[in-house]
Amino acid sequence: MPRRFSTEHRFGVFVFRRRFWIIAKIDEGTDPAFAGEAVNFSWLAMTIVSLRQGRGSRMDASKVTFESVQQAAARITGVAHRTPVMTCSALDGIAGRRLFFKCENFQKVGAFKFRGAFNAVGQLSEEDAAKGVVTHSSGNHAQALALAAKMRGVPAYIVMPATAPFVKKAAVEGYGAEVIVCEPNLAARESTASEVQARTGATFIHPYDNDDVIAGQGTAMLELFDQVAELGASLDAVITPVGGGGLLGGTCIAAHGLDSSVRVFAGEPAGADDAARSFEAGKLIPQTGPKTIADGLLTSLGQRNWSIIQQHVEQIVTVSDDEIVAAMRLLWERAKLLVEPSSAVVLAAILSGQFTPNRQVESVGVVLSGGNVDLERLPWL
Amino acid sequence: MPRRFSTEHRFGVFVFRRRFWIIAKIDEGTDPAFAGEAVNFSWLAMTIVSLRQGRGSRMDASKVTFESVQQAAARITGVAHRTPVMTCSALDGIAGRRLFFKCENFQKVGAFKFRGAFNAVGQLSEEDAAKGVVTHSSGNHAQALALAAKMRGVPAYIVMPATAPFVKKAAVEGYGAEVIVCEPNLAARESTASEVQARTGATFIHPYDNDDVIAGQGTAMLELFDQVAELGASLDAVITPVGGGGLLGGTCIAAHGLDSSVRVFAGEPAGADDAARSFEAGKLIPQTGPKTIADGLLTSLGQRNWSIIQQHVEQIVTVSDDEIVAAMRLLWERAKLLVEPSSAVVLAAILSGQFTPNRQVESVGVVLSGGNVDLERLPWL
Repeated sequence: MPRRFSTEHRFGVFVFRRRFWIIAKIDEGTDPAFAGEAVNFSWLAMTIVSLRQGRGSRMDASKVTFESVQQAAARITGVAHRTPVMTCSALDGIAGRRLFFKCENFQKVGAFKFRGAFNAVGQLSEEDAAKGVVTHSSGNHAQALALAAKMRGVPAYIVMPATAPFVKKAAVEGYGAEVIVCEPNLAARESTASEVQARTGATFIHPYDNDDVIAGQGTAMLELFDQVAELGASLDAVITPVGGGGLLGGTCIAAHGLDSSVRVFAGEPAGADDAARSFEAGKLIPQTGPKTIADGLLTSLGQRNWSIIQQHVEQIVTVSDDEIVAAMRLLWERAKLLVEPSSAVVLAAILSGQFTPNRQVESVGVVLSGGNVDLERLPWL
Repeated sequence: MPRRFSTEHRFGVFVFRRRFWIIAKIDEGTDPAFAGEAVNFSWLAMTIVSLRQGRGSRMDASKVTFESVQQAAARITGVAHRTPVMTCSALDGIAGRRLFFKCENFQKVGAFKFRGAFNAVGQLSEEDAAKGVVTHSSGNHAQALALAAKMRGVPAYIVMPATAPFVKKAAVEGYGAEVIVCEPNLAARESTASEVQARTGATFIHPYDNDDVIAGQGTAMLELFDQVAELGASLDAVITPVGGGGLLGGTCIAAHGLDSSVRVFAGEPAGADDAARSFEAGKLIPQTGPKTIADGLLTSLGQRNWSIIQQHVEQIVTVSDDEIVAAMRLLWERAKLLVEPSSAVVLAAILSGQFTPNRQVESVGVVLSGGNVDLERLPWL
């Protein structure tokens, strides 16, 4: 089978393996300290990548297609929730547009992350799957991967910093995963994850810079289009939050696969605005020192997602933490939608002066990414 | 047309008119002070009713039929939200049963009350409707009636005590109703409502002791059965909270109209347990001095609803405020369902030792009645 792996492909694998040890450590951890370090490390990784220019950028482009999103959808049907699409006339009135909320806060583990994790675990060979999966995250990806592994009946190893909230560890353990606690610094996380891989042979599943994950996240958009059609409506535009870009990347491929004319927007916290700055500069600019209440959006945009977003997204709207909290409260109070701050970013974006001048955007599909909130500490109290 | 109104019917109208001035003043107001007075008044009303025994009890029996619920459903289709039915494997695990949550917290005005109010306003003749509708309430019925009247394009007059929270007045005014503020005592509310009626000719719409309202509330159950069937499942039992009994009454008629073998349960706060005590005693016992966090369930059971509940309900489970708060937190944290304490009563009931011994109750349809919570004061903070 001489053509089974092309030279380019093999080189890609080589580069991927070299980069694995770097990129693989970047996570969307919701612990700001944890994420802050990840981000600094991301900056290092991106620097290495940019030194490779030409080669590296080709290797890192996403290969996600509309077909891979459709295959992911077939894989998750009957497993992931087909989350409801909700409307709220009060919020429509405030926005001056029809908003169709795709409620991924009701997804398994409380966030869209389950879609990508389940799809990625499902793609593993029997042999690889049996050795398990590993990631490090104290965020929604950790729970999502733990549950996806449990459902396939394979081990999951989740590396978490000792500073992660107890409730997050308990949630991951509740899904049957083995939590490996490490010191809250990069070296410890890296060495701990390496030890787990060496010991177990587990496959690392990156939270967003992974084509199977991206394809999985795109499945929410397929459902949203169907559900809006069932309501007798259609979408002029869609919007998602952007952090690492897995959701936004998958959304781009799915939405434009269904309707090339639909406009794709993103909302991003002003305090972690690497996607917006990259978009403006036309090149990937890593996030350093993020500071925002939207703790799911602290990380740098992934290479694969950047390659998609550049081609598909019309505008990335940045919003302040005050705008995020106000939008979150509107969603809770008026729409009874219990979402986390990272989800409220999209409503904040829609209400922002950066977005409001957009014309011919009568109906918007809005992805509410998750609902994992610390109910002891609401941001308006 | 000599037979258009029978003697009995005419006498019924007479009795209704006499009782109007009494029963009509009882509301499900969420302001405990307000409701407390309503309840004392209710006690007076019930005393008068029981003195009439024989006659009165016949006159006050509900005439709601399965057909009237179906007619109500036709009337609200495309107007009320067909609220989603949600499932949560974590809560199923805790309960040891499959739970299908009918999420009326996502209904217009954030509660099932819109169904009954819209149905009742829709039944008025053009002539009566033009004169408007009146109620007094500081709870969900106030907003529901205000919105239903707005949608028909007729005036709504809502009498509210001066002590009602500002946000509730603002919400009612936001639906275009005229709020008439009165002193927070029975005499003032009564005279104020009478003045409004004398001045405007508006029709009083009771929040629960009204057959059109009861039929409207039953429509949620028709949807729930359909939606559970769409999920490939069926229901062994259904459960709703009980306060005035409009939701429970409508649920009984609808559920047993669809499936005479389905078991009907209710959850009630121990601090306002008149339905449970009535059920045990076999006669209507009014509520006095209610004290519970479930502020939508403070009132006495309505006569019409009592006549239904006696025949259809298997068990009324009473729960403490601690159980209600714990269940509310479970719904928020595990299912991401933003419900008010009155809704959490049903999950608390399902988890209660009074309910758990029930056998052959594998799948339960659970009506979550509303989501109007003061987000400044969460009960666990």
